[in-house]
Amino acid sequence: MAVFSFLSPFFLAVICVLIIIILQSMKKTDGKKEKGEKTSKAESRPWVDEDLKDSTELLAEDEEKDEWQDSDEENLTHVPFSPRRYSEQEMLKRSKEFYELLNQRRSVRFISDKAIPREVIDNIIRAAGTSPSGAHTEPWTFVVVEDPEVKHKIREIIEEEEEINYRKRMGDKWVNDLKKLKTNWVKEYLDTAPYLILIFKQVYGIRSNNRKKTHYYNEISVSIACGILLAAIQNAGLVTVTTTPLNCGPRLRLLLERPVNEKLLMLLPVGYASKDATVPDLQRKPLEDVMVVV
Amino acid sequence: MAVFSFLSPFFLAVICVLIIIILQSMKKTDGKKEKGEKTSKAESRPWVDEDLKDSTELLAEDEEKDEWQDSDEENLTHVPFSPRRYSEQEMLKRSKEFYELLNQRRSVRFISDKAIPREVIDNIIRAAGTSPSGAHTEPWTFVVVEDPEVKHKIREIIEEEEEINYRKRMGDKWVNDLKKLKTNWVKEYLDTAPYLILIFKQVYGIRSNNRKKTHYYNEISVSIACGILLAAIQNAGLVTVTTTPLNCGPRLRLLLERPVNEKLLMLLPVGYASKDATVPDLQRKPLEDVMVVV
Repeated sequence: MAVFSFLSPFFLAVICVLIIIILQSMKKTDGKKEKGEKTSKAESRPWVDEDLKDSTELLAEDEEKDEWQDSDEENLTHVPFSPRRYSEQEMLKRSKEFYELLNQRRSVRFISDKAIPREVIDNIIRAAGTSPSGAHTEPWTFVVVEDPEVKHKIREIIEEEEEINYRKRMGDKWVNDLKKLKTNWVKEYLDTAPYLILIFKQVYGIRSNNRKKTHYYNEISVSIACGILLAAIQNAGLVTVTTTPLNCGPRLRLLLERPVNEKLLMLLPVGYASKDATVPDLQRKPLEDVMVVV
Repeated sequence: MAVFSFLSPFFLAVICVLIIIILQSMKKTDGKKEKGEKTSKAESRPWVDEDLKDSTELLAEDEEKDEWQDSDEENLTHVPFSPRRYSEQEMLKRSKEFYELLNQRRSVRFISDKAIPREVIDNIIRAAGTSPSGAHTEPWTFVVVEDPEVKHKIREIIEEEEEINYRKRMGDKWVNDLKKLKTNWVKEYLDTAPYLILIFKQVYGIRSNNRKKTHYYNEISVSIACGILLAAIQNAGLVTVTTTPLNCGPRLRLLLERPVNEKLLMLLPVGYASKDATVPDLQRKPLEDVMVVV
């Protein structure tokens, strides 16, 4: 047959080679896909809220910083600074008393509805606002909720998302463990605490020329401010519990009408401990387990 | 010619189609590569140390947490908790005085070599260790360096990396700006400060059965502890500057012989302010710019 003319076998061979190339390139693409999926699965951090992710990576307009120093700082006047000093004896006493004060702090989930002067909350937030921040950007917004209706809406959002979290993650164990878990997922303190402080990190700022301003280390900066906030709450004789409402950030942001550059980092209910408050009988690590001297 | 036998044009057409398929699939792969490069460039955060990245994502062995509560806590005894309360008048006074104390804090880059009792440093770190942490994992190690030789080695590593950072990022501007920049890149306080506190976050823990233990929110937890550390330093009448030595984490970790699950988060030189200390004439945002009441 003419099909088997002397060059046709050659064409057949070429076709075979081309088909093999195509098949191999398809295999490679598949492999990449599979690997990609694996990576994204391995990299997922289920306890990290999507809305919480630091999006400053999109705005790398400035250079690296290690001292959190703003480039504008170079043009600022530098002024002499003589902070107050204490005698060695006083330093020892003050440092010991501060430790003892903070060591009495516990995360409390039972908060009384007894009212607290707003000025105390103002002072506590003023203290948190003295925190250092990358390039002195002060990338924080403290939303203080005292309106009972808004507090209740916040509770509804958080409990709804929590229920989904629990149901989704517990699977078959859900039905059996329902009763036990309910204590975790129902958050009465969101109604009873006289104040809820929602701490938003500003993942970028807005310059006067309407351009985005990179907020270096914004999550670390706002977390440091939260540390100072916790110390200030304890110093005032009030209690709180450190919470990071999972997956609630976007809904709470919309409820509180915060702009898109703000992401919820933490929620602290603040008040007096209720009379029947309990805490788990936990111990802290001793100094030798957390400190190494070189 | 036999080449043009009636089926050869068919084979030729098939070969053409196959070649087009191969070319298109190559084009696609290139496109993906290009896009991938773009993405990774856009996502790069030059001020985030590679060694600092949170690698807990590899260990998602437990469920989500929002209250930082350990699953073990459910099995713990719960004990009554009655923290100390103050009168409203006292609360107002205490909260105001704490704010005023912290508002005097400034980041100071000029630190005296005057000695400080080690016990003060111990108390400061004890205070930081009272910080709350995700699932009460206490994922921090505070390395206190007082040995002058080790301090100097730390300085060498940081200044070396800093020089690379500056040279790499400044490009042509480098030569002209050298003098001005030198003040940023030479860090005398690393030698003069009586103590350097290097704060490591433990990105995972080790269980008794030698398995890895997930440290939820370890970076946020350690940053909160750093906030409390800063408050404790200020309370003792000492100064520091919050630094995150860029790209130095791995070398400093090796120098200080810390295990692989510990990543450097921050370095705080601690001491008295030197007599000729200056600070940039910065202002803090007023309360109404950081607080929103609902």
